[in-house]
Amino acid sequence: MRNIKVKVAYEGTDYSGWQIQKNTAYTIQQILQEKLTEISRNKVQVIGAGRTDAGVHAWGQVANFQIDSTIPTARIPQALNSMLPAAIVCKQAKEVEQSFHARYDAKAKKYLYRIHNYFHPPVFNRKYVYHLYQSLDVSLMRDGAKHLIGRHDFVSFQASNSYPTDTVRKIKSVKVFKQGREIGIEVIGDGFLYKMIRIITGTLIEIGLGKKKPSDVQEIIKAKTRAKAGFTAPAQGLTLIKVYY
Amino acid sequence: MRNIKVKVAYEGTDYSGWQIQKNTAYTIQQILQEKLTEISRNKVQVIGAGRTDAGVHAWGQVANFQIDSTIPTARIPQALNSMLPAAIVCKQAKEVEQSFHARYDAKAKKYLYRIHNYFHPPVFNRKYVYHLYQSLDVSLMRDGAKHLIGRHDFVSFQASNSYPTDTVRKIKSVKVFKQGREIGIEVIGDGFLYKMIRIITGTLIEIGLGKKKPSDVQEIIKAKTRAKAGFTAPAQGLTLIKVYY
Repeated sequence: MRNIKVKVAYEGTDYSGWQIQKNTAYTIQQILQEKLTEISRNKVQVIGAGRTDAGVHAWGQVANFQIDSTIPTARIPQALNSMLPAAIVCKQAKEVEQSFHARYDAKAKKYLYRIHNYFHPPVFNRKYVYHLYQSLDVSLMRDGAKHLIGRHDFVSFQASNSYPTDTVRKIKSVKVFKQGREIGIEVIGDGFLYKMIRIITGTLIEIGLGKKKPSDVQEIIKAKTRAKAGFTAPAQGLTLIKVYY
Repeated sequence: MRNIKVKVAYEGTDYSGWQIQKNTAYTIQQILQEKLTEISRNKVQVIGAGRTDAGVHAWGQVANFQIDSTIPTARIPQALNSMLPAAIVCKQAKEVEQSFHARYDAKAKKYLYRIHNYFHPPVFNRKYVYHLYQSLDVSLMRDGAKHLIGRHDFVSFQASNSYPTDTVRKIKSVKVFKQGREIGIEVIGDGFLYKMIRIITGTLIEIGLGKKKPSDVQEIIKAKTRAKAGFTAPAQGLTLIKVYY
């Protein structure tokens, strides 16, 4: 048995997220397991670094699995890509030591939220961005973003239907940048609560629209209640860019 | 009746090209006519600058139509976009003089062919590029492209199942550029024969692979037969960028 680490990119539009589910919903993890099991003697179990939600994309998701097969490691991406739907691509495979675990060993993750901030809707990127036609004030958003940096209890930025016991996370950086008609929010942190980046984005959007003040971010963190934060921005604008080990 | 000039962008993937057809195939022109007829008192006829093929995209297609409606011209894009499928967006509308004709008045067009030149297939741009994993020599392609510039009989670069009487066209520029994993071929000309840019692209690809020499382009033009040119590159890599008036 070899322990293989892979990098995977996918468009999440037509999938029910990363994580395998009990019902018939089709997920990225499930498809990868099915295809890997075809090229292996064992029933392959895939461990992902992050559980992206339904509709969320990935540029650099990382996963690992134990495989019992004669296939050379370097040929795994090609073999997988010939079987996978076009919306999922394996970009790299590498044999790692048995102890490597894609989720537990992940030190940080980088996510990007893309907003198409222009009057008319986008055509070519429409599945990867959130279209918002009201003009956003990027410098207000940047001021609000500063208050997120550091180790905080982010329970206010967690979907109200989830209850992990430990809601303290560390955000290393939040960059808000404008590039043509697009505004990007890039967040690096050691881990994220359920829907946390989409709620951060919704909050920064409300700040950019003048509905909330940049300093409100501090109040929202202190309040420790989901109701104080902004709306949950739609999944389609979010992409998992990179996992750090 | 006002004569309205519009700029339209679309993803051609799921459509049978621009031009309306007798059978039930769904085309961009047909959809625009249907939606415009809904906001007008007359049955609107849309004239497009270029007839993009099935699967070809547009960033800046131009069209014009006569409309009998109370809708202010500036509101037309918004009204249309609220009715159009997400793959088609009207970006601009402007009232022009009665004599303006989107096709006859077009002085030149700019097309871009995008090649994803990397071992693994692309995910996010996969519907807008042609994936070619063999490495292309861009400088050979540039040398070949030079011979296309100028006024020539391009009959060798015309799909063999079409027979216009006049096959002389003027190509103003051909730029071949590399940007990361992508190679772009940008062609500006006063007009193009059926599938001409896709055959030019196929020929330049064969040059980039070393299967043809850059100087072969001159021979192909002289030969005046489709059989001498390269393969027809797939529609999905091609986008109509701009129409010049």
